[in-house]
Amino acid sequence: MKILTLNERDMQEAMPFEGILASMRKALIESAEGKGEVPQRLRVNIPQEDGQTLLMPGYAKASRALGVKIVSVFPKNPEKGLPGVPSVMLLLNEETGEVLALLDGTALTRWRTGALAGVATDALARKEARTMLLIGVGGQAESQLLAVSLVRSLEKVWVYDLDPRRAEAFAQAMSETLNLSVRAVEDLSAILSKADIVTTVTTSRQPVFDAALLSPGCHVNGIGSYTKEMSEIPVELLQRAALIYVDTKDAIEESGDFQKPLAQGTFALEQITGELGALLAHKAPGRRSKEEITFFESTGNALFDVVCAKDLYEAAREKGLGQMLEL
Amino acid sequence: MKILTLNERDMQEAMPFEGILASMRKALIESAEGKGEVPQRLRVNIPQEDGQTLLMPGYAKASRALGVKIVSVFPKNPEKGLPGVPSVMLLLNEETGEVLALLDGTALTRWRTGALAGVATDALARKEARTMLLIGVGGQAESQLLAVSLVRSLEKVWVYDLDPRRAEAFAQAMSETLNLSVRAVEDLSAILSKADIVTTVTTSRQPVFDAALLSPGCHVNGIGSYTKEMSEIPVELLQRAALIYVDTKDAIEESGDFQKPLAQGTFALEQITGELGALLAHKAPGRRSKEEITFFESTGNALFDVVCAKDLYEAAREKGLGQMLEL
Repeated sequence: MKILTLNERDMQEAMPFEGILASMRKALIESAEGKGEVPQRLRVNIPQEDGQTLLMPGYAKASRALGVKIVSVFPKNPEKGLPGVPSVMLLLNEETGEVLALLDGTALTRWRTGALAGVATDALARKEARTMLLIGVGGQAESQLLAVSLVRSLEKVWVYDLDPRRAEAFAQAMSETLNLSVRAVEDLSAILSKADIVTTVTTSRQPVFDAALLSPGCHVNGIGSYTKEMSEIPVELLQRAALIYVDTKDAIEESGDFQKPLAQGTFALEQITGELGALLAHKAPGRRSKEEITFFESTGNALFDVVCAKDLYEAAREKGLGQMLEL
Repeated sequence: MKILTLNERDMQEAMPFEGILASMRKALIESAEGKGEVPQRLRVNIPQEDGQTLLMPGYAKASRALGVKIVSVFPKNPEKGLPGVPSVMLLLNEETGEVLALLDGTALTRWRTGALAGVATDALARKEARTMLLIGVGGQAESQLLAVSLVRSLEKVWVYDLDPRRAEAFAQAMSETLNLSVRAVEDLSAILSKADIVTTVTTSRQPVFDAALLSPGCHVNGIGSYTKEMSEIPVELLQRAALIYVDTKDAIEESGDFQKPLAQGTFALEQITGELGALLAHKAPGRRSKEEITFFESTGNALFDVVCAKDLYEAAREKGLGQMLEL
């Protein structure tokens, strides 16, 4: 069995980020059309490390992408100077079951997560959106910013984090990387009304901003809450939003952004417009005015991983990238 | 992340087969002591290929072995000249969740399956057993024979297969490889009474021999039946056997060798002695006479895969084998 191994650099060289956006656009449509098979993820617990290893298999029929992402959440890793969430992605040949490729799962997750919000922002934000507020500057922040910068001509970006020095460092680094005005802010209330696009990517368990301060026409991406216990988004946003899209229907079950207000009776399922892929396929409504507030919630899904991995693999093969190993 | 890739040759050089036997002895004890965490395997179906991909994670606490075997069953592969059941094994570091190694899952499965029956034969067969009958000469047959040849001084081996030419070719090859008298036979009834050890490793859905013809003192390994629909072992053997051991308790649920007679009421759960590891740990009875017939049923388990992979990995590291890749 020949297996192509692709590290982060190979993956970067294989495809510009625009390619990841195109890949996720395709995967979102595939999800909305019900062409994905994504079994419930499987968990192995490692109690003495407070660790867990998650197996996330997926099969995208239309993209002919089959694979499994293996993600280990080991909270003591950072103390050891190791990544907290090491991950690999195995791509399989859907005609033979053979392993085609082994990819860096951490980079893959970062990119596909950023790209999902990028596609959502492209579909939902006003065309003339020029300003963005990013709340949370952890490992997922860079690709969130990069993806939005590819779909809108950003002029100003503000970033906020509970740790102001971390926000400052991120702002400096991103100003250079993206050649954009990126500024760290310590007071959200002054900024919220100025942001055309707001993205939250934190691990918070309570809302991280005041929805009353958002301007009409704003688009919000909720990216950080992927368990029922986590929530970043104030229920007032859900109540104000004219459109509420999710990456897949699983997000409704998985995210505390929905589950907490649903449990409290302050929000109803019917207020969710649907899966973003339906809008991308022109089968669901998009923004109807410059005043509407729109919201996109993403919890991610193995379907996005397998489609992204397949597209990266094919691009890498064409360019002769990566290291081939014989097993 | 540094990942050591071990192909079949690396694995072979890392450890003599005796090492695999020792590894499985340890894993069987660990299983009987309840120190393994093996979640139900996860399946992804690929309907247009009649294919399925199975994810088999396991965590052996005492052996500190964590990993997942990925096995794809694609029945159309042989027509394409490809292995029907391609497989890889990912070994993870149980302290950090990082991937330590990628191994050939097909070789691993073959070896650990053979070794399990070897350990069982060592524990249950008479010390003076000198003859063996192997029923079924598919992909698992060679390691079955090799493992038994390491625990008993075999003088004569007979092999039988529905396809006599295949049996003949296997017998010739094995005679040379093991430097043993291995003969293909077409009539089982003449041989059954002469065999001290009988191993069945077929995909049959009905019993493959007549238990009445077995001699007193015979030991039988049932290896092929790993689904409820499959069965190789006649219920009369279960009724005659003084000891019935399983590799793990899951074998009772998984194998048609038990499930069919249980459903028909011709066999009772209480007749199963227990997990082989309990006998290895001297906590359960072994053979008490030269006349007792003993039986071992194995359906395999991810626990055996992870322990075997960990031991192979450590041996390979010590000898500097394999190819290190940086992801």
